[in-house]
Amino acid sequence: MSQALKINSSSEPYSDLPQICTRLLEAKAQKGQCLSFEAIGKAIDHDEVWVAALFYGQAKATPEELAKLGELLDIPANNLQAELGEHWFPRRGLGPVPPQDPLIYRLFEGVLVYGTPIKALIHEKFGDGIMSMIDCKVSVDRKENPKGDRVVLTFDGKFLPYLKW
Amino acid sequence: MSQALKINSSSEPYSDLPQICTRLLEAKAQKGQCLSFEAIGKAIDHDEVWVAALFYGQAKATPEELAKLGELLDIPANNLQAELGEHWFPRRGLGPVPPQDPLIYRLFEGVLVYGTPIKALIHEKFGDGIMSMIDCKVSVDRKENPKGDRVVLTFDGKFLPYLKW
Amino acid sequence: MSQALKINSSSEPYSDLPQICTRLLEAKAQKGQCLSFEAIGKAIDHDEVWVAALFYGQAKATPEELAKLGELLDIPANNLQAELGEHWFPRRGLGPVPPQDPLIYRLFEGVLVYGTPIKALIHEKFGDGIMSMIDCKVSVDRKENPKGDRVVLTFDGKFLPYLKW
Amino acid sequence: MSQALKINSSSEPYSDLPQICTRLLEAKAQKGQCLSFEAIGKAIDHDEVWVAALFYGQAKATPEELAKLGELLDIPANNLQAELGEHWFPRRGLGPVPPQDPLIYRLFEGVLVYGTPIKALIHEKFGDGIMSMIDCKVSVDRKENPKGDRVVLTFDGKFLPYLKW
Amino acid sequence: MSQALKINSSSEPYSDLPQICTRLLEAKAQKGQCLSFEAIGKAIDHDEVWVAALFYGQAKATPEELAKLGELLDIPANNLQAELGEHWFPRRGLGPVPPQDPLIYRLFEGVLVYGTPIKALIHEKFGDGIMSMIDCKVSVDRKENPKGDRVVLTFDGKFLPYLKW
Amino acid sequence: MSQALKINSSSEPYSDLPQICTRLLEAKAQKGQCLSFEAIGKAIDHDEVWVAALFYGQAKATPEELAKLGELLDIPANNLQAELGEHWFPRRGLGPVPPQDPLIYRLFEGVLVYGTPIKALIHEKFGDGIMSMIDCKVSVDRKENPKGDRVVLTFDGKFLPYLKW
Amino acid sequence: MSQALKINSSSEPYSDLPQICTRLLEAKAQKGQCLSFEAIGKAIDHDEVWVAALFYGQAKATPEELAKLGELLDIPANNLQAELGEHWFPRRGLGPVPPQDPLIYRLFEGVLVYGTPIKALIHEKFGDGIMSMIDCKVSVDRKENPKGDRVVLTFDGKFLPYLKW
Amino acid sequence: MSQALKINSSSEPYSDLPQICTRLLEAKAQKGQCLSFEAIGKAIDHDEVWVAALFYGQAKATPEELAKLGELLDIPANNLQAELGEHWFPRRGLGPVPPQDPLIYRLFEGVLVYGTPIKALIHEKFGDGIMSMIDCKVSVDRKENPKGDRVVLTFDGKFLPYLKW
Amino acid sequence: MSQALKINSSSEPYSDLPQICTRLLEAKAQKGQCLSFEAIGKAIDHDEVWVAALFYGQAKATPEELAKLGELLDIPANNLQAELGEHWFPRRGLGPVPPQDPLIYRLFEGVLVYGTPIKALIHEKFGDGIMSMIDCKVSVDRKENPKGDRVVLTFDGKFLPYLKW
Amino acid sequence: MSQALKINSSSEPYSDLPQICTRLLEAKAQKGQCLSFEAIGKAIDHDEVWVAALFYGQAKATPEELAKLGELLDIPANNLQAELGEHWFPRRGLGPVPPQDPLIYRLFEGVLVYGTPIKALIHEKFGDGIMSMIDCKVSVDRKENPKGDRVVLTFDGKFLPYLKW
Repeated sequence: MSQALKINSSSEPYSDLPQICTRLLEAKAQKGQCLSFEAIGKAIDHDEVWVAALFYGQAKATPEELAKLGELLDIPANNLQAELGEHWFPRRGLGPVPPQDPLIYRLFEGVLVYGTPIKALIHEKFGDGIMSMIDCKVSVDRKENPKGDRVVLTFDGKFLPYLKW
Repeated sequence: MSQALKINSSSEPYSDLPQICTRLLEAKAQKGQCLSFEAIGKAIDHDEVWVAALFYGQAKATPEELAKLGELLDIPANNLQAELGEHWFPRRGLGPVPPQDPLIYRLFEGVLVYGTPIKALIHEKFGDGIMSMIDCKVSVDRKENPKGDRVVLTFDGKFLPYLKW
Repeated sequence: MSQALKINSSSEPYSDLPQICTRLLEAKAQKGQCLSFEAIGKAIDHDEVWVAALFYGQAKATPEELAKLGELLDIPANNLQAELGEHWFPRRGLGPVPPQDPLIYRLFEGVLVYGTPIKALIHEKFGDGIMSMIDCKVSVDRKENPKGDRVVLTFDGKFLPYLKW
Repeated sequence: MSQALKINSSSEPYSDLPQICTRLLEAKAQKGQCLSFEAIGKAIDHDEVWVAALFYGQAKATPEELAKLGELLDIPANNLQAELGEHWFPRRGLGPVPPQDPLIYRLFEGVLVYGTPIKALIHEKFGDGIMSMIDCKVSVDRKENPKGDRVVLTFDGKFLPYLKW
Repeated sequence: MSQALKINSSSEPYSDLPQICTRLLEAKAQKGQCLSFEAIGKAIDHDEVWVAALFYGQAKATPEELAKLGELLDIPANNLQAELGEHWFPRRGLGPVPPQDPLIYRLFEGVLVYGTPIKALIHEKFGDGIMSMIDCKVSVDRKENPKGDRVVLTFDGKFLPYLKW
Repeated sequence: MSQALKINSSSEPYSDLPQICTRLLEAKAQKGQCLSFEAIGKAIDHDEVWVAALFYGQAKATPEELAKLGELLDIPANNLQAELGEHWFPRRGLGPVPPQDPLIYRLFEGVLVYGTPIKALIHEKFGDGIMSMIDCKVSVDRKENPKGDRVVLTFDGKFLPYLKW
Repeated sequence: MSQALKINSSSEPYSDLPQICTRLLEAKAQKGQCLSFEAIGKAIDHDEVWVAALFYGQAKATPEELAKLGELLDIPANNLQAELGEHWFPRRGLGPVPPQDPLIYRLFEGVLVYGTPIKALIHEKFGDGIMSMIDCKVSVDRKENPKGDRVVLTFDGKFLPYLKW
Repeated sequence: MSQALKINSSSEPYSDLPQICTRLLEAKAQKGQCLSFEAIGKAIDHDEVWVAALFYGQAKATPEELAKLGELLDIPANNLQAELGEHWFPRRGLGPVPPQDPLIYRLFEGVLVYGTPIKALIHEKFGDGIMSMIDCKVSVDRKENPKGDRVVLTFDGKFLPYLKW
Repeated sequence: MSQALKINSSSEPYSDLPQICTRLLEAKAQKGQCLSFEAIGKAIDHDEVWVAALFYGQAKATPEELAKLGELLDIPANNLQAELGEHWFPRRGLGPVPPQDPLIYRLFEGVLVYGTPIKALIHEKFGDGIMSMIDCKVSVDRKENPKGDRVVLTFDGKFLPYLKW
Repeated sequence: MSQALKINSSSEPYSDLPQICTRLLEAKAQKGQCLSFEAIGKAIDHDEVWVAALFYGQAKATPEELAKLGELLDIPANNLQAELGEHWFPRRGLGPVPPQDPLIYRLFEGVLVYGTPIKALIHEKFGDGIMSMIDCKVSVDRKENPKGDRVVLTFDGKFLPYLKW
């Protein structure tokens, strides 16, 4: 008989999050591969990236969403409400930067290397402004490729022109 | 009669680059809107983001590409070769981080907020490894939207599994 | 029956504050939307921003104010006095900077982008000196707007001219 | 007869800006108190804070605005176009943080001390999201007060709710 | 009946100090305003600033001084000896710098703004050397003033000339 | 015949200041010991520390003061006005911190070691607030002492209570 | 009879790792010199460096490998699965950099001193790209030498050319 | 006819080195692919990595080696002696860390990820001590591989046991 | 009857060390002045500085040395072996730098001020290389002096010439 | 005929020093091995380390010492006075820390590894206080040793007890 899975909740990034986040991740892990973020997303009508953001304390759910989530993962809705309810607001962030984790560092390197070219292109196509990271959808897809499958990471964010007043 | 456009080559990010980069950008600017990065890309058979990366010293062109570029922008190929030729290698990078520029900061914030969720999803879909930022295509597109057009920024990078030995 | 709400008191910004601060916030949350900072402010004769500052350990209340607060939130005044009484003094601050939280970062970006222009204008209108952040009122208002409501954040601080001696 | 005014363009914050910014500030200074940012603002139909932002390289003007500015300050429009024209985009920012300048530090301290309370209030009044620093008007006013005049600094920014997808 | 006063000993600056420091401060607070640092200083024959330094773990007392202190504050001398006795040596310091606390930051700003002028004057009056911060008395006085009372902070330190050998 | 004295104006702290500051210091040095900061102070009716602050770009003089200064040091008033006139505002500061210079470091260490005790005493004597570093006089005196003369450094600043609103 | 060996699991680098890592290292230590990383490697068909990486939470094992490891070290496989199973993913990294530990610092110094020369040689031999640290084998060998044995540290990583698109 | 090749000597890493280093690299580049570091190494009896280290100011040559080098690259030996002679000593180093350049970052990541495992293995095989980075040979080889050629980077350094005294 | 002496093991530098280090220091303190580091050194045949390094987790003892130490200090040898035995290796280091402790800062300042001159002299006397900090003896002596006793701190380290290969 | 030796005066540590320092070092180098720091020291009655400190801008000479130095090195005394005379005061320091230069880093590592043990021993032998780095002699000696000569680096500094007041 298997033992309950554990996450080291005293280390980054878990130590900065409500403890219930660790419990959410453990409950998901307990269900194994049959419960992917995609599957959870379908159950609560959200994209898998948004769900993962929620599990890592980077997004905020409604009471209804928490209720569905509790049902799906066998966690009392009360517990979820107690820690992630209306009164809670995410302090979004990553911990020390630059990140040392190689996967996350590669994303960071994407900003280091392509940040200025991306800025130049947005400026050329839209004018003076930014891509919103608030009104923004993120997706992570697997694209098959005979030379090795590829990760397709997309940020789809609203352009916000600088206000002139 | 108009005066030659200038870029403050003693400030970031220009000060770290070969001076010819500044000249490339000034030459492009001189031609105005009829010479977008996309147009240059078509002329040298590359995507516009790669071209912008080249102009900001983040990529490396072949002698043939430099020759075409010189012709397009009325810069002697010799000058381009002298600074961006075989002997040159890009020291890719951005300058001080976190970036203060709001547009580039938003990209950085994308890593801060979504870095761990993206990692969790790549792990779930591919296993232990990373998305390559070397074997990676970047694109920046404008998507029309009645509520405000959107920037679609995509990283399409090869998944690299961790070697076990 | 609902469970007591919880705040992760071992994470920033709670870990640096007297534990009673966490309890104040949980008690407020328990009362739900009927007990806004504004409502608490009315009960203890202070502005809502000052009240929020007090709850986050950035301001100091008198014994009378603590007593009223205890009554309002069903916390024994003794407990409040024990941690936030005369002997306590706030170590005001935010934690690591730059802040990663997107909302707080935007305020920080306001300083990055508009700091020098604001300095130039204060200099032009008042001469050599500063705006006091000690003798300063802060307000946060919601202004309706058909294109999307707006936050109006105001700092109203005394001008202090540099002493010449 | 007076000598042309000078600004130390090799020091912060001038060294990071197009040199024309220094010239703009010197030209304004040359005209003395009769040419305040407010007066310039009226001439080019913008608020004084936006004008100051432009002079410090934090905002972007149209060719028409540059033309009016050149006329007002006796700077050939060509020169302004050459450095601040379409091809230029501001790299907004302040230089090293925390800022050491006492006036700017006070603004920064405003974020340190009141950042979390402001976040709590915006959350209470608007829900999960941020105040835009892009679609944001900034004003600096002098308010008379018998105990010492006050600076009223206002940020009026659009609330942006977090997208859920 | 009042509850024992508490200090959050897991936060800065208390977390770096022997726990008995927290107890000293709580004991002092318990006695209220009748037991100022000045009063304690008189009882153990030291200046109030030195006493405050001792309470915050920045100075070292003799066994006799600890004994007197224990008597005054109703703390068993054994407890004081156990943590602050001969075997203990202060690791003097403040925690992260720059300090965010506004009062301490102002002292720090005094060094930022007046550090070089002070150096120039010491050099002019004494020659090449420093003001000792080891053989140095610090005092904090309240000076009445109709426009608002003033803090008079004095460092009285021995000049140490650089040895030439 | 002696050569004109020189200061390395491309190094800290001179590189961040108007070049005229270097010239002021060189002119003062040229006059040798007969022209101390105290003597200059008497000539322009200010304390020697304020004068030193002015020479290091940390304070702002009126046109009249600049005129007197020019006369005293044989620098055309026009030159002083051109760089330090009305249009100029000091960006007060020190450069990288912690300072490595041993004299300035000792001042900094004074804040590290005595910062919290000083805070505790100000709080005890005045309540919740700060010592102003804007409405503050600084003095540096030499006190004779048979065991070695002492530096007496005094900050005399207005107490500012925190506004409650 | 000997006492169970202990590792200070609340300090770097152990505090960031799953607690089972500490237990793995203690179990290995308990067995003494007869159980080197090499011996463990043979038992689970991996190189000794990979095994050490696994013990320090820098690599990921399959369930089968964990099972073999549990058997070898008398740790129930369930415990290993609970903390290092499928749901776990390594957050690779070292902690604060630069490292202070002298052995690890020497590796870091290798990058400081030889990083640019190594880059130049890779560029010369392979063109524009990098050595993968993901598809990379690391080995540590002892080479006898009469003047003192030598450490031979090898990184054998795939060259990845920069994609041009 | 081709133009002399240029290196941007005002940017990292060239700005910290004697200017003759830039000239060495330009002279080598001028000769094209027929003059690899390996070829230069053969001419002056050193390994190619050591030669690259010399060209990047990280190693020190004898007068004889400089003479041979001058001959090979058509640079007067006097010039080499004037900047890299006996009186010169390398200030070895890389510039800001962590390095942003992706190739050098991968080396740095090797230390982040494998530093502790490497330490554990050296400790197991040699006892308490370090691998010398002073008495250390570095090599960079290309190893053919049908799946993509590999970089083999080796550090061969003397083990130094900690002295006990 | 006296109480057991205590050290605040949750603060720097104790928190990073095996807990037995704290116990060693407390046991030594319990014995008072009759048990100096020198006395312990004699008992285990090592210099006092090496002993102090051992007590602060910066050096590594053999089982025999631990046994003698246990006997001397009444700590079961098993306990010492369990935490400081063969399986343990020191992670040498100091914690955050620059150090704020005034005594340790002075050592650090010695490197800041005299580092380059020392380098120049070692280069002049030995050529290109370093002083080993691994094969190095450190001593701390008290030298009597009528003007005030002096600390004589000596580093006696092997010169290591840079390998050329 | 040989060319004048050159030092890259735009790089660290030279860029922060008066230019005359570079000239001093070049003049010394020109004379070759017959003019060691020791020889210069004899000529001006100072120890070689102090002389090296003077050449690197870390110490201050009298006019007489400058005159002797000028004679010895064929530099007009006027030039030395102009830059290093009475009006000049050293800004002692090293530049960015931690130092990357391997020789200087080893000194720094000496503080990291042995700083706390040294503190413990000074405390044990002298009580609460510091070793002065102002009233301190530094020496660097070569000690012959058949296993490899050794560097003996000594700091001989006055003990300063903490003042209690």
